[in-house]
Amino acid sequence: MISVQQALDIIDRFPNRFSSVEVKLQDALNLVLFEDVFSPINMPPFRQSAMDGYAIQYSEAEKFTVIEESKAGDSTNYTLKPTEAVRIFTGALVPDHADTVIMQEHVEREDQFIQIQKMPSKFANIRKTGEQIKTGELALKKGTKLNEAAIGFLACLGVTTVSVYKTPSVAILVTGNELQQPGTDLEIGKIYESNSVMLKAALQKSGIKDIKIIAVKDDYDATKICVKKALQANDILLVSGGISVGDYDFVKEALLENDVEELFYKINQKPGKPLWFGKKENTYVFALPGNPASALTCFYIYTLPLLRKMCGFKNNHLQKVIAKSKSVIKNPSQKTLFLKAYLESEFVEILQGQSSAMLYTYAMSNVLICVDSETAEVNIGDEVTCIKLDV
Amino acid sequence: MISVQQALDIIDRFPNRFSSVEVKLQDALNLVLFEDVFSPINMPPFRQSAMDGYAIQYSEAEKFTVIEESKAGDSTNYTLKPTEAVRIFTGALVPDHADTVIMQEHVEREDQFIQIQKMPSKFANIRKTGEQIKTGELALKKGTKLNEAAIGFLACLGVTTVSVYKTPSVAILVTGNELQQPGTDLEIGKIYESNSVMLKAALQKSGIKDIKIIAVKDDYDATKICVKKALQANDILLVSGGISVGDYDFVKEALLENDVEELFYKINQKPGKPLWFGKKENTYVFALPGNPASALTCFYIYTLPLLRKMCGFKNNHLQKVIAKSKSVIKNPSQKTLFLKAYLESEFVEILQGQSSAMLYTYAMSNVLICVDSETAEVNIGDEVTCIKLDV
Repeated sequence: MISVQQALDIIDRFPNRFSSVEVKLQDALNLVLFEDVFSPINMPPFRQSAMDGYAIQYSEAEKFTVIEESKAGDSTNYTLKPTEAVRIFTGALVPDHADTVIMQEHVEREDQFIQIQKMPSKFANIRKTGEQIKTGELALKKGTKLNEAAIGFLACLGVTTVSVYKTPSVAILVTGNELQQPGTDLEIGKIYESNSVMLKAALQKSGIKDIKIIAVKDDYDATKICVKKALQANDILLVSGGISVGDYDFVKEALLENDVEELFYKINQKPGKPLWFGKKENTYVFALPGNPASALTCFYIYTLPLLRKMCGFKNNHLQKVIAKSKSVIKNPSQKTLFLKAYLESEFVEILQGQSSAMLYTYAMSNVLICVDSETAEVNIGDEVTCIKLDV
Repeated sequence: MISVQQALDIIDRFPNRFSSVEVKLQDALNLVLFEDVFSPINMPPFRQSAMDGYAIQYSEAEKFTVIEESKAGDSTNYTLKPTEAVRIFTGALVPDHADTVIMQEHVEREDQFIQIQKMPSKFANIRKTGEQIKTGELALKKGTKLNEAAIGFLACLGVTTVSVYKTPSVAILVTGNELQQPGTDLEIGKIYESNSVMLKAALQKSGIKDIKIIAVKDDYDATKICVKKALQANDILLVSGGISVGDYDFVKEALLENDVEELFYKINQKPGKPLWFGKKENTYVFALPGNPASALTCFYIYTLPLLRKMCGFKNNHLQKVIAKSKSVIKNPSQKTLFLKAYLESEFVEILQGQSSAMLYTYAMSNVLICVDSETAEVNIGDEVTCIKLDV
């Protein structure tokens, strides 16, 4: 049995290599750039008017003749004499002969003439070519998470595809003769299978799209075959159930028989003690406890950081905050405890129903309180570490 | 021209009605329950063993005969005599005749006999029928946001569909002759259209799936027809561009001509002054400024809260935090300023490049600093309100 920190350190050695994939820009939300992106164009691509107004050659003159009009999108590069002006709109091409745009609010127009009321400084109200970025300059660094603004920025540079960290494909293998699919009346001795839909939702929330669910009975040969198939086609295999000490837990044998190297088994924690972690080539395997709340805790603490690291995230662990406990917590077991709790401003309260079979409490929680194995007691007002669940 | 608060107050009066939709549980992640959900079953549905061990009738006896075995999923309800035991596993049906489960670690087994080393208290290690929830009891309240734990909880109760707030359908109407679709070399006077892909990404991040993009030239009749179609089929219409003061901005007229009621136009803010908000029946219209950064700011401050409210969220505005400014901010204009900035622990710094045409700065920001119209100057160390962008 190892400590929580030892388990985290082992997982933190992986992955051994990262994969990239080329995706369309519009499909790249929340993905992380695998390579630097350089601008294919100047932005703005030409001298743009920053205002609705009149483009002129800067001078002491007070009256100009309006000879043409340049709307956004127009391509004509009008020739201007010193006291001629071009009516111009925001975003429109500023003629090469013009060096200044006067805001429309600062002129008085009469027919084709404008009378200047307030001359701006020379070069005013013109966005220079490449002012935002020049052709070949670094647009976004590798490692940047593509949010909506980053996507908009690359789109305005004409970028249509990007190389990003490949999000891992995940198989969820669900074991247990007691599990029945929802949609029919429960048979005696059975319960509805819920871990796969729960884990799938947790994976989706983390941006994973390629998720397969495989159900298998408590049978060694069937488990072995399913594990083999899942290992071939996925970056991560989550096994739900079948890893505790009962005589009918085949999972560990099935994994070892498939040449999955055991990296650890059992952590000095509650819940989630029988977590098993292993690796075969570039596929990582977490055998999670069958109890739903234990499975979810192990997912948050151990699986999610590896997943997020594979996706290219730098802050790959769930965020921690310190809060004052509103509850007394006893920890005579010398295990690390993860307790479902509710954080409100700087106070955190343990919720009723910490049993590892109970998901209701989890649904009402927004943090896990982490009490380390050396802390025997937490009193009201003591500071505790909270792991935030709302990713 | 109205203040930011007045604009927010007007939007906050809507929507006038909420819509619900029935979805499959596995598709309900991050959606909000429109109705209370009651449990269709007892959970656990039968008396379950909480341990791997032996089920017995509690007594003073020290030796029991193991007569049968009850695995998880087995349905046989074995009959037990006072000194008989059933080998039992976690989650398995506890026979009606048994009232206590002894942990396997607390017995010594020899062939079909077990010798008790530590007798637990009566009724120990048995999860009672309905201990987590009983048939007909409230499982989750309306208004609950369905996270992965809530989905797992409902799945274990056999719930397969849920009634949730319908996420609005959104059309994005993009106007501007200067806009060119990416994928070809830029023509003179044109820029790549980026607002639609940016807004689409922002909508997707907020859980909106039904998003249509409509491009239209700067032409009054074409704009009018596109607006009409978009109003018929969507809950929200976002118009990008065409709402400032230029002679070729047709959008306002096209909206009014389609009987969209104007609820406000122009806000005393920078950027995003020419924001227009209106309503036709149950469709809401935001005409956003064409400059990408202005459009995104208006989206975050005004559109997103309405969207999130329609989705059933209680905290529908982006989260605000107070931080200490690392920058001097001058605000002689008496407008509310929204400045792209980077927050790190309790300090926030304004980023270079606040021009409303620049998205790069936005891509690097994690907050907007909000400086209200009455604040003429912010000095280093002053507390400022930051609006968090990472939803």
